[in-house]
Amino acid sequence: MNFVTFRTATDGMPRLGAVVDDSVVALPGDMASLCASGADGFAAATRTAAAAPAADRRPLANVALLPVVPRPGKIICLGLNYADHAAEGGNNKPEYPSFFMRGPSSLTAHGAPLQRPRASTKLDFEAELAVVIGKTARHLIPANALEAVAGYSCFNDGTLRDYQRKTAQWTIGKNFDRTGAFGPWLVPASALPAGAAGLKIQSRLNGTVMQSSNTAHMLFPVEETLCLITEAITLEPGDVVIMGTPAGVGYARTPPVWMKAGDTIEIEIEGIGVLSNRIEDEM
Amino acid sequence: MNFVTFRTATDGMPRLGAVVDDSVVALPGDMASLCASGADGFAAATRTAAAAPAADRRPLANVALLPVVPRPGKIICLGLNYADHAAEGGNNKPEYPSFFMRGPSSLTAHGAPLQRPRASTKLDFEAELAVVIGKTARHLIPANALEAVAGYSCFNDGTLRDYQRKTAQWTIGKNFDRTGAFGPWLVPASALPAGAAGLKIQSRLNGTVMQSSNTAHMLFPVEETLCLITEAITLEPGDVVIMGTPAGVGYARTPPVWMKAGDTIEIEIEGIGVLSNRIEDEM
Repeated sequence: MNFVTFRTATDGMPRLGAVVDDSVVALPGDMASLCASGADGFAAATRTAAAAPAADRRPLANVALLPVVPRPGKIICLGLNYADHAAEGGNNKPEYPSFFMRGPSSLTAHGAPLQRPRASTKLDFEAELAVVIGKTARHLIPANALEAVAGYSCFNDGTLRDYQRKTAQWTIGKNFDRTGAFGPWLVPASALPAGAAGLKIQSRLNGTVMQSSNTAHMLFPVEETLCLITEAITLEPGDVVIMGTPAGVGYARTPPVWMKAGDTIEIEIEGIGVLSNRIEDEM
Repeated sequence: MNFVTFRTATDGMPRLGAVVDDSVVALPGDMASLCASGADGFAAATRTAAAAPAADRRPLANVALLPVVPRPGKIICLGLNYADHAAEGGNNKPEYPSFFMRGPSSLTAHGAPLQRPRASTKLDFEAELAVVIGKTARHLIPANALEAVAGYSCFNDGTLRDYQRKTAQWTIGKNFDRTGAFGPWLVPASALPAGAAGLKIQSRLNGTVMQSSNTAHMLFPVEETLCLITEAITLEPGDVVIMGTPAGVGYARTPPVWMKAGDTIEIEIEGIGVLSNRIEDEM
């Protein structure tokens, strides 16, 4: 069973939900507390949602989703984590991941607009695997690293390429409001291969395949990445790690492809689902 | 009147406090809500604290402080924002700030240990001005940018220099647990010159002055920085902007100076106060 964060029409507050067939059943707590609740917590949430009466099911199509975790404490991203994407930007295979961070104000949900800002037209897509953390973790080792993962989702690491390159630090180009799409839902780690390895990953712009690869091609897989991060940083439930993107992004094409108002960008990861967003100009 | 976040001995929860003489008076709400409450909110908090009976005053020396904002939604930092520090690292005066982010798990409080991790001995200090945001703000302009500031504090942007340089992205070297000291308190913007400009800023390692400059020498002052950030990003109450450091850091010295267990590092900014931390090794 998959899990979402959504906003109710009545009070507008974020709520946790479970996806049952084509409907959403509200659950107590929030996504971070579900992620922290472990296998027993996921099992209990699944039982509760499956037993909910029909009257408690909201049609998924009518529900306003929020980012899977609406306010992560940390969003840690990897750059250049697929050899082909590193190569298309003229970079060698790295010895260490290029980490940067996004803030929560940069997120947008499945089905919500992905925003092209007033400041730039160089809006690019990046299909990525999102790892949602379920445990407070420091100094993970390969034998236990994946125990810290609650589940996975899709992420579109929307980037303003000119701002990314204003200095050597990519952060500002990765943090424009509503450019990081995160959804549609959390798939529990138990429902996917270990480390979400070996999954097809794709982006499609207005239906045309732009990126098509496999998470098996990540230079730093999930397990190794979590070990490296927690050498430095305590990960906490609800933190998110974004695993980098394969080749095929817009800026590296001839001529370059930029997303513009009215475009639809989809990120699909095998076994997870499709994250879809329409581009809107900032007013 | 200055304001702190502290942890009570009774329930261990973070609480907002006002500093009255050498004591702390607990107030309702938290630092982000105080920052969002505007001039009237600060005035009301000041009146409440000043009127508190002696029995409600806890000696400041006995209070365990927390980072001024314990869990900021965003911590946006500037690199190379003083010409002399940019030059000591071999960098030219930039045309745009080098922005990066810290996560809340990297913070430590005034009087709490600043941690040297197991992974590295290359722990360096950086005296910086911290700007705490009081309004939800996008597309600020010079005429209104400083209205978004609730107050100021001191920050020590503790850095593991070898991790900072593992790739072109500085983020990982700036995010080790408990390396970013933030305190001792929030000084309301109304108590300082506009943009906290023209204030002496200094770091002292075991009493020896290591950095000594003035916020007047920032290449991008507070007002301009907030305009540039909000071209891209919505700032929110409780967000923090860290304004970069002047020359004199440890790595640029001959021989280099690294902080080690038992050292005391102080950051002082004129009109704000002294942020003091003892270095401890991670166990």
